[in-house]
Amino acid sequence: MTQQCDFIEYSNKNTVIQGYKNCTLLHREKSQFQNIEVYQTNAVGKLLLLDGKTMISDADEFIYHEVMTHIPYAVSPQTKRVLIIGGGDGGNVREFVKHPEIEEIHLVEIDERVTEVTKRYFPQCTTGLADKRVTIFSEDGIKFISQPERRNYYDIIIIDSTDPEDFALGLFCTDFYNHVKNALTDHGIMVAQTESPIYDEFDIHSIYSNMRDAYPIVKSFAAPMPIYPGVFWTFAFCSKNVLPTNLNESKIAHMKKIQLHTKWYNLDWHMGAFSLSNLHKKKTGVSLT
Amino acid sequence: MTQQCDFIEYSNKNTVIQGYKNCTLLHREKSQFQNIEVYQTNAVGKLLLLDGKTMISDADEFIYHEVMTHIPYAVSPQTKRVLIIGGGDGGNVREFVKHPEIEEIHLVEIDERVTEVTKRYFPQCTTGLADKRVTIFSEDGIKFISQPERRNYYDIIIIDSTDPEDFALGLFCTDFYNHVKNALTDHGIMVAQTESPIYDEFDIHSIYSNMRDAYPIVKSFAAPMPIYPGVFWTFAFCSKNVLPTNLNESKIAHMKKIQLHTKWYNLDWHMGAFSLSNLHKKKTGVSLT
Repeated sequence: MTQQCDFIEYSNKNTVIQGYKNCTLLHREKSQFQNIEVYQTNAVGKLLLLDGKTMISDADEFIYHEVMTHIPYAVSPQTKRVLIIGGGDGGNVREFVKHPEIEEIHLVEIDERVTEVTKRYFPQCTTGLADKRVTIFSEDGIKFISQPERRNYYDIIIIDSTDPEDFALGLFCTDFYNHVKNALTDHGIMVAQTESPIYDEFDIHSIYSNMRDAYPIVKSFAAPMPIYPGVFWTFAFCSKNVLPTNLNESKIAHMKKIQLHTKWYNLDWHMGAFSLSNLHKKKTGVSLT
Repeated sequence: MTQQCDFIEYSNKNTVIQGYKNCTLLHREKSQFQNIEVYQTNAVGKLLLLDGKTMISDADEFIYHEVMTHIPYAVSPQTKRVLIIGGGDGGNVREFVKHPEIEEIHLVEIDERVTEVTKRYFPQCTTGLADKRVTIFSEDGIKFISQPERRNYYDIIIIDSTDPEDFALGLFCTDFYNHVKNALTDHGIMVAQTESPIYDEFDIHSIYSNMRDAYPIVKSFAAPMPIYPGVFWTFAFCSKNVLPTNLNESKIAHMKKIQLHTKWYNLDWHMGAFSLSNLHKKKTGVSLT
């Protein structure tokens, strides 16, 4: 008989408790980069942890992956090549392969064990990885993006990172955002997860300030991530000249078909998602007037 | 020396854990209706519990109170008289007294001890209660609203209830919604908290179905309530003929002044808040097409 335990994540300097009762540990390993664990929970199905922090669950991974991919796709003037940095679970790839216009999808995940563990325990996330347009690079995202051959190459780049700590810290710096900008085409779009403003453990204001140092257009939107501390989660949309609410006319009919099967994303929600509350504006450096 | 303890709320049939570490119990009493407790937490300041469930905290009560009051006010054609059923903490009253147009504010809270405890521990919530337009009734909300003299009386009615259990269960039934409708003027608006769709412990679909039995216009919106289980929280906007995104032209200048000082609400956010995700549509009975 497998032993049950409670999984609890402490956040906000050890003051906030969030977790699930009576979980079963399905998998535990120490990769070259981090501890990888999978729990079976009663509330959110299977739950993937990296170094003890919640990454994805069966119950809510679709929110995160749908909003990060379909928002930039729907406004991108032309989308031939996309890159995902991090996101070894494959969830963002699964969403991008829904768009036949995309010719090339690169996934750069520093830790290939994340992908292998996800394939076994979250097969619904990795269905896109077998698509012939997809190439996986087991490399450091910062080095990858800095290579000269990436210059002016991608139409969309997704930064699907862990928190700004340890080896992911560099993914929140101005230098990195400039490298990403250089790897984007003129109409390119970067989307990144930017943490929760509720307890604001990672100083969102400084993340957005770094982005504004690199991009003329920096907008924020939010979606709930029930397994993440604070739940109310923010994302950034950055570009040189594309606005996140300027839908690409030629894509609307296609997106209306896609949204019949998505579980979170639709064009209505997309258009409303950039109308921010005062709290959201303040934390991301947007004037209230 | 005061002893410290962790406060934990178990939800979703005892599968989800949410709470705060190292809290101090400031107050505990058993009123005629429920257990009332106040904790000092490190994460969200003071925290009010009724029968062990989180009600308000210093850190986030403004979200709940601003969205429930300013949304109906901004679209109400004329707002002379408002009623709050439940909400003995006074937070909704504090927001309504910001509008000089309102002549009469009735607060019906079955448990007067909630108001007394809030006055002592959350004085920022109760600042509106001394306003000369405010009358507090320590009565059962269902009986209050059913009286013939309430007929066709209120321009806005807020249902600020606890979960649909025990003595609050009647506040989620079609009969009650019909009584509220009868107490509203022709252009009247009802706003109610309608729980979280994330774990959906209380079958939101049936709550909205009951509302649609009573009202021709039933719309939903969401805002995060970090202290509530699931955090992603929904609210209903119901009326006979007023739409939630049809701003009242004569109020816009006033609302633009108000939103310079609110911490969550502003007109931009208001207009985007009714653009729902597929999950939100599905749970509240809205077609995806």
